[in-house]
Amino acid sequence: MKQDQGTLIEEAVGTTEAKSVQGVEMKPEHAAQISAVIDAVNAKKIENVYFVACGGSMASLSFGEYFLSKEIETPSFVYTSNEFIHRAPKSLGENSLVILRSHSGTTPETVEAASFAKAKGAVTVAISMEAESPLAQAAEHLVHYNYKDGSDAIDGEAGIFYTLIFELLNALSPNEKYKRVVNQLPNLGNLIEKNQQQFAEAANEFGKKNKREKIIYTMASGAYIHHAYSFTSCLLMEMLWIHSNAIHSGEFFHGPFEITDYDVPFLVVKGEGSSRPLDQRAIDFVEKFSDKVEVVDIATLNYDGIDEDLKEYFGPAITGFVLRLYADGLAEHTGHPLSVRRYMWKMDY
Amino acid sequence: MKQDQGTLIEEAVGTTEAKSVQGVEMKPEHAAQISAVIDAVNAKKIENVYFVACGGSMASLSFGEYFLSKEIETPSFVYTSNEFIHRAPKSLGENSLVILRSHSGTTPETVEAASFAKAKGAVTVAISMEAESPLAQAAEHLVHYNYKDGSDAIDGEAGIFYTLIFELLNALSPNEKYKRVVNQLPNLGNLIEKNQQQFAEAANEFGKKNKREKIIYTMASGAYIHHAYSFTSCLLMEMLWIHSNAIHSGEFFHGPFEITDYDVPFLVVKGEGSSRPLDQRAIDFVEKFSDKVEVVDIATLNYDGIDEDLKEYFGPAITGFVLRLYADGLAEHTGHPLSVRRYMWKMDY
Repeated sequence: MKQDQGTLIEEAVGTTEAKSVQGVEMKPEHAAQISAVIDAVNAKKIENVYFVACGGSMASLSFGEYFLSKEIETPSFVYTSNEFIHRAPKSLGENSLVILRSHSGTTPETVEAASFAKAKGAVTVAISMEAESPLAQAAEHLVHYNYKDGSDAIDGEAGIFYTLIFELLNALSPNEKYKRVVNQLPNLGNLIEKNQQQFAEAANEFGKKNKREKIIYTMASGAYIHHAYSFTSCLLMEMLWIHSNAIHSGEFFHGPFEITDYDVPFLVVKGEGSSRPLDQRAIDFVEKFSDKVEVVDIATLNYDGIDEDLKEYFGPAITGFVLRLYADGLAEHTGHPLSVRRYMWKMDY
Repeated sequence: MKQDQGTLIEEAVGTTEAKSVQGVEMKPEHAAQISAVIDAVNAKKIENVYFVACGGSMASLSFGEYFLSKEIETPSFVYTSNEFIHRAPKSLGENSLVILRSHSGTTPETVEAASFAKAKGAVTVAISMEAESPLAQAAEHLVHYNYKDGSDAIDGEAGIFYTLIFELLNALSPNEKYKRVVNQLPNLGNLIEKNQQQFAEAANEFGKKNKREKIIYTMASGAYIHHAYSFTSCLLMEMLWIHSNAIHSGEFFHGPFEITDYDVPFLVVKGEGSSRPLDQRAIDFVEKFSDKVEVVDIATLNYDGIDEDLKEYFGPAITGFVLRLYADGLAEHTGHPLSVRRYMWKMDY
């Protein structure tokens, strides 16, 4: 585990592998931050990994837990920040790696969770857009990302996070696959752009068809349940004031499916990867009994430049940018901008 | 860990400790089944515990993960059965304990999950009401419970499960507290009855006030989020066809709270235990902005015969029986019996 003291980004610099993506390279300061985390991981015997954040940031971190649980034996857990502090998991300690995330770096619960984990002796890593934020101060390590999509996506939230996760996987259990993921991640900007173009019309049409709906369920499984959670909590409920619930496709038949009716809308993310059959079963059911089913099929995504066996790692990194368009479609046709709030930014709570 | 080869139930038989609950003792065949599981755990070095089931059964098992994560260092995880099979967690293996649950023992995904885990060499335990069910056949061990509440609750689903969990905690990390929990669990029947009496009127009133609601949100944290999940999935959505979403009190302020309005109903379980302040914060908010808030305060439960420091273990064991009354109240006043289904039992899906 300790034999590889460098990181994959460092290795790739100056090689033809890195050149395969034309001129797109992670900024050196970002690469250095990730390397520092990997050095800290290599310097310790990491026994477990905690992903700690709130809301959409927690959902984003959850992809880390998804891949770790599938790929390696080191146990990993996801907690919403306050639950983490109040439950105080017994196995949190000096051999824990705690990865926290807050876009602004100001989420009080997450800042407190960082201090709590640091006091327990854990390696703490803050992921944030704000390098000078309270979260960045509270954690030992900072992994900063730019708030921008597009050509520099490797320095944006997905590029930085996925690089960190696959560097971490490689540090904990070296595998050439993880190296290829890191080498192909600079394709992300191009892929996000192409896929947003590909889904733009369908997303707009979804907004038009559903503009009078008061409730829209989301459904997914595997890694994509976390996209459903974000879409439900942050886009539908928070930004659009539409009632929702993110239902796991495997759980659907054990309670929630009785709510299905001809006029109940579902947005289903049909995943690429091992749990795709679960989604298909749920889709077959809702398409039979509801007239309002929208399927976002991850297998139809454009994966240009990505090796066939790595697609399952890239799907979750791209999907959030595609789903955002479906919220934009609703915003456009309801005349309710995604920036409107009634409580947030307006009062203390 | 291995010094105590017996179980706490065995130790207590014939002592004054066991006599404190008048004449209520677990049936010998149930005690023997739990002892066999503990023997199997003691015979191996258990490195992780998986709780695997669907819907309400998964929610019930989740209390196991809650207490294990708080109390001991052995990592534990909850999976819905299909996700478990398709994700195939890397750390599942010969040193895993996999606890599965299905009321009827026929849930196909859970039966398949048992076979999957057994093939990986894990110790498999089926919890079921049906001793001859496919799940009981597929798993190595069976822990059977009676489908009855009331005076023999120690042999019912909560009594059997909590005895198993606290025997397991004691096997993995011996502690006199766990011994007292097992000794006081025979009080459960009495406590369920008293608490159902105490909450009957409030529950009926809740049904009356909310009988015309099309959507009711539930909210909780800590162990109680699993009660909220069951209430949302199995009682509101499945049995009453009322739209819902179980929101974690700590997540509420990170998206979902923007849905709050004067006419949006919330049922909040205000937990007893470490995450109670999270619930209080969410209650303060919804009570300010919604006219339709129902709080079920776990601290007001009757805990007769339970040591003060053990209340946090007993609250989750009692709460499900109390919340059931709130669904009964809705059933009574909507004229929609909890037994009605439109898809389940009527077709293949």
